[in-house]
Amino acid sequence: MINFTYYNPAKIIFGRNTEQEVSVEVAKYGKKVLLHYGGGTIKKIGVYDKVVNALKAQGIEFIELGGVMPNPKLSLIQEGIKLCREHQVDFILAVGGGSTIDSAKAIAVGVPYEGDVWDFYMNGMQAKEALPIGVILTIPAAGSESSDSSVVTKEEGELKRYYGTHLMIPKFAILNPETTCYLPDYQTACGASDIIAHLMERYFTQVDHVDFTDRMIEATLKTMFSYAPLALLEPQNYDYRAEIMWAGTIAHNNLLNTGRIGDWASHDIEHEISGIYDIAHGAGLSIVFPAWMKYVYNENQDRFVQFATRVMNVDFAMDQKEMIIEEGIRRLESFYVKLGLPVRLSDIDIHEDRLQEMADKTVLGRGTVGNFKKLTADDVYEILKLAL
Amino acid sequence: MINFTYYNPAKIIFGRNTEQEVSVEVAKYGKKVLLHYGGGTIKKIGVYDKVVNALKAQGIEFIELGGVMPNPKLSLIQEGIKLCREHQVDFILAVGGGSTIDSAKAIAVGVPYEGDVWDFYMNGMQAKEALPIGVILTIPAAGSESSDSSVVTKEEGELKRYYGTHLMIPKFAILNPETTCYLPDYQTACGASDIIAHLMERYFTQVDHVDFTDRMIEATLKTMFSYAPLALLEPQNYDYRAEIMWAGTIAHNNLLNTGRIGDWASHDIEHEISGIYDIAHGAGLSIVFPAWMKYVYNENQDRFVQFATRVMNVDFAMDQKEMIIEEGIRRLESFYVKLGLPVRLSDIDIHEDRLQEMADKTVLGRGTVGNFKKLTADDVYEILKLAL
Repeated sequence: MINFTYYNPAKIIFGRNTEQEVSVEVAKYGKKVLLHYGGGTIKKIGVYDKVVNALKAQGIEFIELGGVMPNPKLSLIQEGIKLCREHQVDFILAVGGGSTIDSAKAIAVGVPYEGDVWDFYMNGMQAKEALPIGVILTIPAAGSESSDSSVVTKEEGELKRYYGTHLMIPKFAILNPETTCYLPDYQTACGASDIIAHLMERYFTQVDHVDFTDRMIEATLKTMFSYAPLALLEPQNYDYRAEIMWAGTIAHNNLLNTGRIGDWASHDIEHEISGIYDIAHGAGLSIVFPAWMKYVYNENQDRFVQFATRVMNVDFAMDQKEMIIEEGIRRLESFYVKLGLPVRLSDIDIHEDRLQEMADKTVLGRGTVGNFKKLTADDVYEILKLAL
Repeated sequence: MINFTYYNPAKIIFGRNTEQEVSVEVAKYGKKVLLHYGGGTIKKIGVYDKVVNALKAQGIEFIELGGVMPNPKLSLIQEGIKLCREHQVDFILAVGGGSTIDSAKAIAVGVPYEGDVWDFYMNGMQAKEALPIGVILTIPAAGSESSDSSVVTKEEGELKRYYGTHLMIPKFAILNPETTCYLPDYQTACGASDIIAHLMERYFTQVDHVDFTDRMIEATLKTMFSYAPLALLEPQNYDYRAEIMWAGTIAHNNLLNTGRIGDWASHDIEHEISGIYDIAHGAGLSIVFPAWMKYVYNENQDRFVQFATRVMNVDFAMDQKEMIIEEGIRRLESFYVKLGLPVRLSDIDIHEDRLQEMADKTVLGRGTVGNFKKLTADDVYEILKLAL
């Protein structure tokens, strides 16, 4: 176990009808709110009306900025910053999924900053202050509702970049699993895949003596492996949705990487696939992760044996380590297939022609990606070939 | 799963040599510190010198109040409140275990309050403000380092009472497992028993559909069942101590009772045993918990079957539920015995004569204790008889 600092002051308000608590929470921090959201889903499922009515009942002024797209765009963020300054907004309320929250976080650090908000994402600038933000989450996936980070895409050059600061941790996050019962199956599956990837990126570490956090990650993975398929069978089941929603937050609030170093190469590789092809992040991850596993497992067989036995319940004889590991990976692939997710690039009609380009872009500007095994462009190319 | 709010803003600083970070953290909140501790242990193991030197190097003024005893006493707390007012202390730094931290929490809410601090513990008064506190933990057991509560004993009438408010959550807690390598075996065992009890009090719930938190509690229990015996075999092993220390904090920071209702009867019963007899809290718990389990398991056999199979690895045929449950309890008892803890009142020379008195005192002023099964004085008497 390595030394660590853990700090997460986000207040989680979880359960049925919890949207109604939004006005009391907002009133603690702000008088003039930017209500930030994506498309029409929150209006269709009634969350928008609930929120707007709660704010009005409390006499809280607000202005609106909708239109956040998946992979939130810098241009809308810059529009949001301008709007907040013009209207002297002092609180940002994000209603939706990870993209909306990430967009809100970028606006929050951008408003009090004199320069271009992109400086934080690209030029190593550190934010000194930020507007407080609050969240009403409707899609369990990205974990942004209590994380300290945000991913933003600059349209020019299609640059997708990350920035993190504790100033971005939401003051509160309201999680009502009822709102997630409306998700289409494929979105439920992709969200589950993203959550599972957040867990596995942390699980596959080269740091020794991390048994407690191993077991906590395993507990969260088992929860996802149990309830994601059940939520597809019974989309309206509150209990199944609740397990997934709470697991999704814990998967990414930094508790589960205390004392360890995660990998994150699969995320980096996936970003380049979904940068070129129009596929969901979760669907890209279900393709990349098994291939990554096959390529790297000899770097630390014990860790993969532990994954296969403790998480995937493989109980083959211990003198056949590679068989155990490969069976563990096969069971993971079967799980993805059960969710209706692709596990090969060819499943989504991606073939050999642009693998080298994706491999090169993955390591561009950083030399290697990942920590479990530091991957060069050649390594990434081999992983993509395994994923064909 | 029931609706819940989870909020824990304590900053955890964990690992080797982390005491040196104390001055930077303290300086964020205060200029004049009360350094609060118990007996001579922190001086013997060098923590006192490290802390004092760090504060001096940063130019932070401090006054000292030592002498906290197990079951922290109201009289010392009142002395601390007076001292803080006289010296215009604006931050309290607790160095030690749960008793020292609980004492510091009581001083923290007492200083800005005009009345008697006992009002919070006994008379339902709610604190409106508190001095900020910080913690350097040297005994993993009580979990007070990031919890929102405190237990204090008023000498007159030997009244032991609880008070909780989010104002009591420490601003930071420094956890260096090296400092726990010096603990005597019996104290290591009693601390482990306390941590395990915090987990089991939460595990045995009648709330349905709490699978994710079940699994997280199981993960933490398995960690304790693995590493507590290993720490006795190799007291100086940093890795073992680290697993226990981090598990002990998570066991009691409220994450693991999100969405569920715990029981806490075993704690209530134990308090009356250690109120009369001179035994450690952890040793009382290893006696009470198995007896409580035997008495209540028919209230919800499924939950006890899950405990026996998932946590204690009992894999008997499923049509023999009572055998599975009882084997699970026997394995728990064997575990306690392996740690050198008592599992019967007779092991510590307590016999039948004062059982009724303890049973009556347990429910005094509250009618019943516990939630898994609401226990009357008669029930508690039967549990104590089972514990003989």
